[in-house]
Amino acid sequence: MSTTAHDVSVSEAAAPSFEGWTCPMPLRDYPTIVLGHGGGGQLSAELVEHLFLPALGGADAAALADSAVLTLPGARIAYSTDSFVVRPLIFPGGSIGTLAVHGTVNDLAMSGATPIALSVGFILEEGLPMATLARIVHDLGAAAREAGVRIVTGDTKVVERGHGDGIYINTSGIGVVPPGRNIGPTRVSAGDVILVSGTIGDHGMAIMSQREGLEFETTIQSDSAALHTLVAALLDAAPGTRSLRDPTRGGVASSLNEIARASNVGLVVREESVPVRPAVRAACELLGLDPFFVANEGKLLAIVPAAEADAALAAMRAHTLGRDATIIGEAVDTHHGMLVGRTGIGARRVITMQIGEQLPRIC
Amino acid sequence: MSTTAHDVSVSEAAAPSFEGWTCPMPLRDYPTIVLGHGGGGQLSAELVEHLFLPALGGADAAALADSAVLTLPGARIAYSTDSFVVRPLIFPGGSIGTLAVHGTVNDLAMSGATPIALSVGFILEEGLPMATLARIVHDLGAAAREAGVRIVTGDTKVVERGHGDGIYINTSGIGVVPPGRNIGPTRVSAGDVILVSGTIGDHGMAIMSQREGLEFETTIQSDSAALHTLVAALLDAAPGTRSLRDPTRGGVASSLNEIARASNVGLVVREESVPVRPAVRAACELLGLDPFFVANEGKLLAIVPAAEADAALAAMRAHTLGRDATIIGEAVDTHHGMLVGRTGIGARRVITMQIGEQLPRIC
Repeated sequence: MSTTAHDVSVSEAAAPSFEGWTCPMPLRDYPTIVLGHGGGGQLSAELVEHLFLPALGGADAAALADSAVLTLPGARIAYSTDSFVVRPLIFPGGSIGTLAVHGTVNDLAMSGATPIALSVGFILEEGLPMATLARIVHDLGAAAREAGVRIVTGDTKVVERGHGDGIYINTSGIGVVPPGRNIGPTRVSAGDVILVSGTIGDHGMAIMSQREGLEFETTIQSDSAALHTLVAALLDAAPGTRSLRDPTRGGVASSLNEIARASNVGLVVREESVPVRPAVRAACELLGLDPFFVANEGKLLAIVPAAEADAALAAMRAHTLGRDATIIGEAVDTHHGMLVGRTGIGARRVITMQIGEQLPRIC
Repeated sequence: MSTTAHDVSVSEAAAPSFEGWTCPMPLRDYPTIVLGHGGGGQLSAELVEHLFLPALGGADAAALADSAVLTLPGARIAYSTDSFVVRPLIFPGGSIGTLAVHGTVNDLAMSGATPIALSVGFILEEGLPMATLARIVHDLGAAAREAGVRIVTGDTKVVERGHGDGIYINTSGIGVVPPGRNIGPTRVSAGDVILVSGTIGDHGMAIMSQREGLEFETTIQSDSAALHTLVAALLDAAPGTRSLRDPTRGGVASSLNEIARASNVGLVVREESVPVRPAVRAACELLGLDPFFVANEGKLLAIVPAAEADAALAAMRAHTLGRDATIIGEAVDTHHGMLVGRTGIGARRVITMQIGEQLPRIC
């Protein structure tokens, strides 16, 4: 089972062991997903019991109820959802499974919340190789364990061949927001400082490099990562942090445009100060893409009061995921609601939100 | 726009008004979904602003952040997720939009929780008519308002034509569980009484009646409904209720089999006492289907202590959604883990879980 119909190749080494899966109707009798795996009967139950629960680390009877019951250490919670339709399913630096955890963990972290629990919903296409599914579910479970969040409830549906693309995943997540914490896109005012936690454009260009017909000389890795510990370090150092954003679809340009509008301030970015890897820059030039619009999955934008900017920068740089953090601009009391880029020779450009889709199905 | 490529027809009367949608780039310039509606740029923002927020009733700036922050009236919560891939998208008695609310509200209610908030994730196929999307999102918003739950966070992705089926929806939900409430599939013991809240098989046969090539004489309506107020009335009358289940995919047979296994008791059902509408029974006979395995979306199974059975029955019958409630069987100390059906002439059959899929994509 070294290649599949879904732009995925699973090496023998990465393939899961089918030994030890029990009768009756062991999964090994079904090398691919069939409609019955979504039927709510015995095949569904076996998929949950033999694959999902072991991989996702929640193999107790409570997981069989219609919903999970959680006792939270506080009554103020953050709640978020994201669907993942990335193509290809497995790419340098991650897979749709890692992305499904990191994306939702990061959305929670951008509210200043500590992520606690995730739900996961699979929409599987009939014919998906069981080995591909196992690899992705394993990635998802490993990413959740690494991030310290529990997957507490889930659902699986199967659609007929030709009505999906192997696998789509939705995750939602719950986090706890400490008392008094108030972070959001409307809280920025003139004088605040904009930081980015590292290089931009890595995820988007890693995906593009894997799409049919495109080959770059260097392997570009996705930056997919869970950012909540970086956020915790940042907020310890800069408790007045106004706004946090993970610039996924639409990239840095969309995130900063949204903040500029929501806070009704102008934002200015010094374009040269924004870190971009040479390989990513080269790939963007080749394809005529602007790194400001390319998706990231392991970077954050932080807007902090000027007085806390140095502390915020030092705290990010001291964290593995923030080593390349930089101050890239500030909020100003002109061009309200707009993002402006400044180049070294003093030129300016308005950086708008893109109209539509630069890179479809990037996450 | 009276027919589409997705087994949906939207009459002129049902089509939403496109008047009053504002420039720039009004939705009316796009009669169908394009990839850019999932790109995180301006088209995405307009879809959210002009369609989702008005229809879903959460048009405030907070909805633009990566996650919603909620303050809950208690720290013990129920959490659930479900994806919806039903085909056709619109059917007698509901649509994928109503189902996406009722399904998750009911999953929460089966934990004895009061549903509070939902997330919604859309996976749209390029080419989906905007009028179909508007109808479905409107249904979803109306169902949420009727159920008294708020849609607090969402996400939209768009996949290329041929990689979806018009629209898939994932919802997750959060509910609050009152202190001391403990309902679950493991709590049943011999002597407990099984009730069903009404006729079974309506949803599944309503969907089947709409599928290509199948025509029945009577229109069968889906029973899709939010059951949390019925549960509240039931729990007031029968506070010792052991287990609640909404028998969706896999039907009554799968739900009762799961409870029998989880509690390690035998369950016995008197087959004639289970209410089935004549049209549903006729359609099942025509297709060779067993109503015990057909999906319901507005019915519940309750297992209560014998001493509370009469009170439970009276409370359900006093509620609009429980008018046809009936006692259908009991838990016994034999054939542990199995469900047995008894017929009037004293015959018995073991009702197993189905192996695979009787009716694909029923929800």
